[in-house]
Amino acid sequence: MSTPKILILGAGYGGLLTTLQLQQKLHYNEAEVTLVNKHDYHYITTWLHEPAAGTASAEHARVDLDRIVDKQKVNFIKGTVQSIEPEEQTVTLENGNVLSYDYLVIGLGSEPETFGIEGLKEHAFSIRSINAVRNIREHIQYMFSKFKNEPHRTDYVTFVVGGAGFTGIEFCGELGDRIPELCKEFDVDPRHVKVYCIEAAPTALPGFDPELVNYAMDVLGKKGIEFKIGTPIKQCTPDGVLLATGEEIKAQTVVWAAGVRGNSIVEKAGFETMRGRVKVDEYLRAPGYDNVFVVGDCALIFNDEGRPYPPTAQIAVQEGETLGENLVAMIRGGLTQKFIPHLQGTLASLGKGEGIGQVGSKKLFGSAAALMKKASDLRYLYKIGGVGLALKKVKL
Amino acid sequence: MSTPKILILGAGYGGLLTTLQLQQKLHYNEAEVTLVNKHDYHYITTWLHEPAAGTASAEHARVDLDRIVDKQKVNFIKGTVQSIEPEEQTVTLENGNVLSYDYLVIGLGSEPETFGIEGLKEHAFSIRSINAVRNIREHIQYMFSKFKNEPHRTDYVTFVVGGAGFTGIEFCGELGDRIPELCKEFDVDPRHVKVYCIEAAPTALPGFDPELVNYAMDVLGKKGIEFKIGTPIKQCTPDGVLLATGEEIKAQTVVWAAGVRGNSIVEKAGFETMRGRVKVDEYLRAPGYDNVFVVGDCALIFNDEGRPYPPTAQIAVQEGETLGENLVAMIRGGLTQKFIPHLQGTLASLGKGEGIGQVGSKKLFGSAAALMKKASDLRYLYKIGGVGLALKKVKL
Repeated sequence: MSTPKILILGAGYGGLLTTLQLQQKLHYNEAEVTLVNKHDYHYITTWLHEPAAGTASAEHARVDLDRIVDKQKVNFIKGTVQSIEPEEQTVTLENGNVLSYDYLVIGLGSEPETFGIEGLKEHAFSIRSINAVRNIREHIQYMFSKFKNEPHRTDYVTFVVGGAGFTGIEFCGELGDRIPELCKEFDVDPRHVKVYCIEAAPTALPGFDPELVNYAMDVLGKKGIEFKIGTPIKQCTPDGVLLATGEEIKAQTVVWAAGVRGNSIVEKAGFETMRGRVKVDEYLRAPGYDNVFVVGDCALIFNDEGRPYPPTAQIAVQEGETLGENLVAMIRGGLTQKFIPHLQGTLASLGKGEGIGQVGSKKLFGSAAALMKKASDLRYLYKIGGVGLALKKVKL
Repeated sequence: MSTPKILILGAGYGGLLTTLQLQQKLHYNEAEVTLVNKHDYHYITTWLHEPAAGTASAEHARVDLDRIVDKQKVNFIKGTVQSIEPEEQTVTLENGNVLSYDYLVIGLGSEPETFGIEGLKEHAFSIRSINAVRNIREHIQYMFSKFKNEPHRTDYVTFVVGGAGFTGIEFCGELGDRIPELCKEFDVDPRHVKVYCIEAAPTALPGFDPELVNYAMDVLGKKGIEFKIGTPIKQCTPDGVLLATGEEIKAQTVVWAAGVRGNSIVEKAGFETMRGRVKVDEYLRAPGYDNVFVVGDCALIFNDEGRPYPPTAQIAVQEGETLGENLVAMIRGGLTQKFIPHLQGTLASLGKGEGIGQVGSKKLFGSAAALMKKASDLRYLYKIGGVGLALKKVKL
């Protein structure tokens, strides 16, 4: 019998944690583990709103895979997946290389969900990768520098954040901190700068406790963010956005943060999907395939009430850990465990030293929430890179 | 007899030095001195190539007028001049205010000379003010961030510098230093980045000793700058530049550094001008007006061979000093002196620690030239703001 080949696509939370489990638990030659990723780094997606606004460097949210993946045990390929052929048990990369597998782990992450809104894809930014957030940061700065030379163009310093969900709110928190710095750097009168946070749903942060939602809106309001809740965006144009109310907001910067869908590669591979997400079974298997597993934003799992879990880092990490252990068990002929998410609470930052959180029935506000978020970040960094990485990345 | 009104337009080298002379030498109530400037700061134009490339902050090249102008002695107006009416002895500001004067000092600086090249005004940047160079810096960074997301668009990381005169060469020196930093920050392979320095004249740095020119081109060549000398630019488009040779360079960044002309406000005021510069007499007077003086880039003076002096900071400073003293003399009924430029040499930087210079018959290369340039900068800062300013601004 030949050594089984485990192929992991994507070094996001799900794929990385699967890889690290295998790296830690498999003995030499028990399996041939290959990790494919677009970049030679992992990034902390839940931090990306900071470098997007420019309140932290992009470098800060990035972890070199060299630092955490043991290349003696894991074969790393820097490459972009083009297609998955589950019948042939192969994966084709953009460079034409074809990889075969015995076990496949799909952790290719999400794509922005534009809900068919015209022009969003072409004219809006999204907070989705290191390259994307550097582009957003530079775009914002560029707009300030342009406004200073063409002061009638207030659309240069008008910013639209589409979506008051988790990402939209966290990004607004950072923008609120960043704009006074930018005004100072570019000699721009803060009164000219506008930030609109536009949400189609009847509330910001749907699913959060109303008291926390009010607290968040109050904090952000004081930072100058103007909310338009229950107000769908109808169209995004090169000049700004048209709202369903008929109002037009002229803005050269639209950041779309209103949700994600699964990955089009997964859809094209022929798996049954809902919005690009594969409804996996209790063992995270794709329907119809015993050897194809899906983790992270591409995986769709339901709670006991039959409602899908939102795609979060927390669940992706747990999926990766469970799947890694299960793969070891499968190779050794041992018992596998069902995946059961353990929700440890939700924490949203609202800029420096501010946040909100729900941990069980407990509500957290302000610096308490910010501190808990730091603790949670520390825990994750320790998990993937030990004390050294945690100390390097978290400013205490 | 009422107190004579001296009105100074512009706080560049010429206007500022005139103001400082008056501030220092006039007694209380001898004259009413008013300085009008667009900004509440003076900037060190000869440093602007650094913040334009991003190798220094824009803040560094800026000196708050509060720090050097004594508002007890000088009436400062932050405003933009719209027109000069020499017959009425008035100046109109953009906000509609009309200022009258007994003595007028025009130091309104220069505008880019585009030599009628189509599209330059619309599509090229110029290194001309704090606001302009911040815009150039941000534009360059933005292009790097865009390239990373659209790697086929090499025009995003192709930079055209129009002109291999003083400013063009100094800017190329800084760009050569900055690009490796940008490549690192944005994960861009340096092999994709191109910088072209394009000059219509048959040599770079016309007027410089050929040995120094060769040295400069060699230093910049090693930093990756590609020269196209004797190659006029025919047209600038949104996509790049068309050369007289028929070649097209696709570039999203064109920085025009091939010379300046005087100020259109001066032309419109009815003074006799050549390319926006007023041919002043030996006392820096505009022809036909005993009470209108022109300093800096708006003033045209000729050497003994009948060739015009190039507009430099060095001459502007000397003009301001002489004129300031003369104005004091005129008010007191004393003797005025003719303006005679004292050329103390020319120094060009080529990036960090590198430069060339001609001081009398002596040629300077490399670190010696860079050091001399620092000494000259120190001297100027000391002159306008004392030891404190010199120490604050010059990194030793």
